[in-house]
Amino acid sequence: MNDSNGSAAAPAASVTQLPTPYLLFLGDATEAGYAKTAFGLRDWAPERCIGEWGCDTATVTTGLPRLTPKQALVRGARGLVIGIANTGGVIGASWVPLLVEAVEAGLDIVSGLHVKLASVPQLKAAAERCGRRLIDVRTPPPNIPCGTGEKRSGKRLLTVGTDCALGKKYTALAIARAFKSRGLAADFRATGQTGILISGSGMPMDAVVSDFEAGAAELLSPAAAPGHWDVIEGQGSLFHPAYAAVSMGLLHGSQPDVIVVCHQPGRQSVMGHPDFPLPSLAETIDLNLRIGRRTNPAIRCGGISLNTAHLEPAAARELMAQESARLGIPAADPMRGGAEFERLIDSCLA
Amino acid sequence: MNDSNGSAAAPAASVTQLPTPYLLFLGDATEAGYAKTAFGLRDWAPERCIGEWGCDTATVTTGLPRLTPKQALVRGARGLVIGIANTGGVIGASWVPLLVEAVEAGLDIVSGLHVKLASVPQLKAAAERCGRRLIDVRTPPPNIPCGTGEKRSGKRLLTVGTDCALGKKYTALAIARAFKSRGLAADFRATGQTGILISGSGMPMDAVVSDFEAGAAELLSPAAAPGHWDVIEGQGSLFHPAYAAVSMGLLHGSQPDVIVVCHQPGRQSVMGHPDFPLPSLAETIDLNLRIGRRTNPAIRCGGISLNTAHLEPAAARELMAQESARLGIPAADPMRGGAEFERLIDSCLA
Repeated sequence: MNDSNGSAAAPAASVTQLPTPYLLFLGDATEAGYAKTAFGLRDWAPERCIGEWGCDTATVTTGLPRLTPKQALVRGARGLVIGIANTGGVIGASWVPLLVEAVEAGLDIVSGLHVKLASVPQLKAAAERCGRRLIDVRTPPPNIPCGTGEKRSGKRLLTVGTDCALGKKYTALAIARAFKSRGLAADFRATGQTGILISGSGMPMDAVVSDFEAGAAELLSPAAAPGHWDVIEGQGSLFHPAYAAVSMGLLHGSQPDVIVVCHQPGRQSVMGHPDFPLPSLAETIDLNLRIGRRTNPAIRCGGISLNTAHLEPAAARELMAQESARLGIPAADPMRGGAEFERLIDSCLA
Repeated sequence: MNDSNGSAAAPAASVTQLPTPYLLFLGDATEAGYAKTAFGLRDWAPERCIGEWGCDTATVTTGLPRLTPKQALVRGARGLVIGIANTGGVIGASWVPLLVEAVEAGLDIVSGLHVKLASVPQLKAAAERCGRRLIDVRTPPPNIPCGTGEKRSGKRLLTVGTDCALGKKYTALAIARAFKSRGLAADFRATGQTGILISGSGMPMDAVVSDFEAGAAELLSPAAAPGHWDVIEGQGSLFHPAYAAVSMGLLHGSQPDVIVVCHQPGRQSVMGHPDFPLPSLAETIDLNLRIGRRTNPAIRCGGISLNTAHLEPAAARELMAQESARLGIPAADPMRGGAEFERLIDSCLA
């Protein structure tokens, strides 16, 4: 176990901070499915997106004005975000001259792809020549300290789940929005690449070295005013055979006052692990509270977030009512909103 | 969450394998306290240590023959292990010419220090020139896969604990020795730098990226013959505010059939975290079994390992008897051996 991963002379760590607003880059996309990141940014961070740009062959559009990097810079853009993902998560050869043009115009480049931006020699050279940054949001910041477990001021909510990929990010975004709409000071705290692009900052928790996982979560939601809420995007699941270490460090380091448990009704087993049955909601609540109590004895469950995208509205409402009655806490689908979601927000703030 | 941290073309991952036997390097040590690594290797891996070497000013000795790198090579040595740690874990300037001499003689250099060997320019150049390896045992191997959760053949025992630094490594070493002395096929599986140096291979679990923590543990104890035991060195504690992510991934990935819970009687709070009371033994057993059941439903607790180094023999024996009666399982101090330890081994093998 390490005392620190930096030397005494190392600068203090901070979360990744992205250059905003963005120009969204669509590459050569001709199918909307490949431009999911761009659409997510348009929908969840419209205030950070001032335009789109791409190869002449691109046919996908977000509906934002098409701007060259120079035009975007004049309108305030500071970063070009790669808004597409192709198979393999690599940088297309046809994109490179355009990315170099953006760097030369004065924009930093931001990417959530697997491949590192600096692995493209022309791009690396252009960034060095122009003094611009190439930012891979999957790369954690340097010098993350170990966790301290010390209590921090302010309030925290963490979305947890019965599995990966069932709505922890969108639940946290929706709750942060709802808190703000009620006049509360609240920040969405991103822990994965898409969330980090949306919020303009965050911590890629799954890429942090295990010894520093709790410390990274502490860094992500620092001490704040007593009435302020950090609404933290959860990762993985304590029951996941591959990723529970991420969930554990995030839970300990976040010290949540409230958890909201996310679930997709009908999912029977862990995604990609058919031999692992999904834990029940009651079991998921219980284990998260038991472990979370270690760093915040006052932790409680605010309610359940159900991803009901596959259900008809009436069936979804009936299921929410059933689950809420069965577990004795609010159950809502944040994407559907409505009275159920308002009750979930009431419960989180109670 | 990642599918893999390597591309399709990346070579398969394997645990760190060290060049053995060793020549132990004592640097310029004049106090035995700084040579703990060398003494640990002499005591726990005598078959891997063929001699010692150091600056002319060194006064500490392990009692092994003093050999130059050339002499050691002739006698079979393949690696020089830095057996000392100074304040800050750095490489002393006076060591550098001797390390270069070892490289030129044909030895690889092995270090468990914080600083990387290749950060010393003369050493890096010598290694490149001579085609020798500079091995930092704190650096994980590349291309560790994500965990699969798939059941592996063979039997596994994991030492867990109420805290860090209370005997998980020595308990695992002693149990592996006892298994072998009973004629069983058994391997000690190291998870920290000292253990890796002792066993000549292993996985530095605290330095692995969180997303791959369980996968690293799976790699460390691969499928084996049905009667074979892997005795795995535990790390941290599920109750540790900084390091629980390491313990979580190690527990899930190890899929232990048996856990042995390590504790230091009298320790009241987590080391370095006085505000965190130590969990009880019963609580530690219960949470480890609950979480471990996820990847091995047959997991059970074999007994308790008590670090009684600070007690008189009679007091230690009385405490073991009390704790064993209270918890209904064997309690022993592996460093003291005796009938208590034999009962603990019986219970692990039951």
